Amino acid sequence: MEFSSKLLENAVYEMSQLPGIGKRTALRLVLHLLKQPEERTNLLSEALSKLRNDVNFCKRCNNISDTELCEICSNPKRDASLVCVVEDIRDVMAIENTSQYKGLYHVLGGKISPMEGIGPQDLNIAPLINRVKQGEVQELIFALSSTMEGDTTNFYIYKQLEGLEVTTSTIARGISVGDELEYADEVTLGRSILNRIPFESSIKAG
Amino acid sequence: MEFSSKLLENAVYEMSQLPGIGKRTALRLVLHLLKQPEERTNLLSEALSKLRNDVNFCKRCNNISDTELCEICSNPKRDASLVCVVEDIRDVMAIENTSQYKGLYHVLGGKISPMEGIGPQDLNIAPLINRVKQGEVQELIFALSSTMEGDTTNFYIYKQLEGLEVTTSTIARGISVGDELEYADEVTLGRSILNRIPFESSIKAG
Repeated sequence: MEFSSKLLENAVYEMSQLPGIGKRTALRLVLHLLKQPEERTNLLSEALSKLRNDVNFCKRCNNISDTELCEICSNPKRDASLVCVVEDIRDVMAIENTSQYKGLYHVLGGKISPMEGIGPQDLNIAPLINRVKQGEVQELIFALSSTMEGDTTNFYIYKQLEGLEVTTSTIARGISVGDELEYADEVTLGRSILNRIPFESSIKAG
Repeated sequence: MEFSSKLLENAVYEMSQLPGIGKRTALRLVLHLLKQPEERTNLLSEALSKLRNDVNFCKRCNNISDTELCEICSNPKRDASLVCVVEDIRDVMAIENTSQYKGLYHVLGGKISPMEGIGPQDLNIAPLINRVKQGEVQELIFALSSTMEGDTTNFYIYKQLEGLEVTTSTIARGISVGDELEYADEVTLGRSILNRIPFESSIKAG
C-alpha cells in the first residue's frame, strides 16, 4: 500500500497494530476520522492516552477501577467470603450482568500458557493465595474458560492452596439453556450427564 | 454494559464511535492496549491527533499530502492533460497500484447523495470545473462507483462542463478478469456485451 502522506501512513500503521484490524480496515477508520470534526479524533486520542496513563487496578481483586478499591470490593453488601477467580475484567462484566452473584472477584489477567510464554509468575496468582491466607475467603469459584490453559491454571492454583482452609468449586458446564441436545458437542453433553443435578435444584434455579 | 471505571467507559465509548466497531469490539481493543506497553497507546494516540490536526490536502487534486502539491501532481512525468475523477483517496491508491495510469487525479471527497444530505456544494466539484477552465486538461475520466449516487455525480459534473473544451470518458465496466460468466450479475454482463471492444484491442491490453 503506497501512501501519499507520511502522517497518514503513520496513523494507519499504528491503527493496524490493534488485534483484528488489518491495513485496509485501519485506512477506512482513519479516513473516517478525517471526515469527522477534529474534536472527534481528539476525544478518542485523549480518552485512550488518559486511560493508559492513569489506569488503576483494584488493590484487592485487580479489577480496573478509578479508586483504590473497586466498587465491588468496597460494597459492604457483597459476600467477602466468596471469591470468583476469572481471567480478565470482561468476565467480571459478564458475571455481573447475570445479577446472580453476590460475592467478590479475583482477576488473574490471563491463563498459564507455556505456548505463549505465560507462567504463573506473570499472573496475579500470588496475591490470590495471600488473600486466602488472610482467612476471610471461604470458597473460591474457578470461572476460567474450560480449555487446556484454563484447566492448567485451575490446577496450579488448587495445588498452591494445599493446607489452607478454603473450599474450591468450578462453575457448571453443560448444555446452554434453550439449546437442542442434538446440536451440542459430545464433550459438553458428556460433562452435563456426568455432572447431573437433582431435579429439585433445577426447579429452584429455573 | 456496566464499567467499573469511568476512564475505561470513556475510552470504549470513543472507540465504538468508529464505523463497524461495536461496544464489545471496542472493549476488546481497549483492553488489548492496556496489556501492551504504554508507548503503544501513546504512539497511536499521537499519530491520530497529529494526522487530524496537521493534515494537508493537495491544493490541485485534493489528495492527502504532506506538501502543498501532492507527489503525483508535482511529478513532471505525469500527463497533466488527463485527469481521473475519483471519490476518495482510497480510489487513488487502488488505481496507482495498477501502475497503468500516468495522468493526474481529482478527489471529490464523496458522491452527491440527497439521502445523506450531500449536495454538489459539499464536494470538491467547483475546483474541478475551474481546473478544466484553465485549459490544460483535455480528458476527464470518471471513475466513481457505478451506483445511483455515482451516476448522478458524473452527470452533474458532465452538465457543468457544457461549453468547455474537454473530452469525458468513464472507466470500463464488465466481467472481472478471471471470472466465470455464469456467476456474473445480469447488469454487469449486459453492460459488458453492450460495451464490447474490438478483439484486436483486447490482445494489446492483455
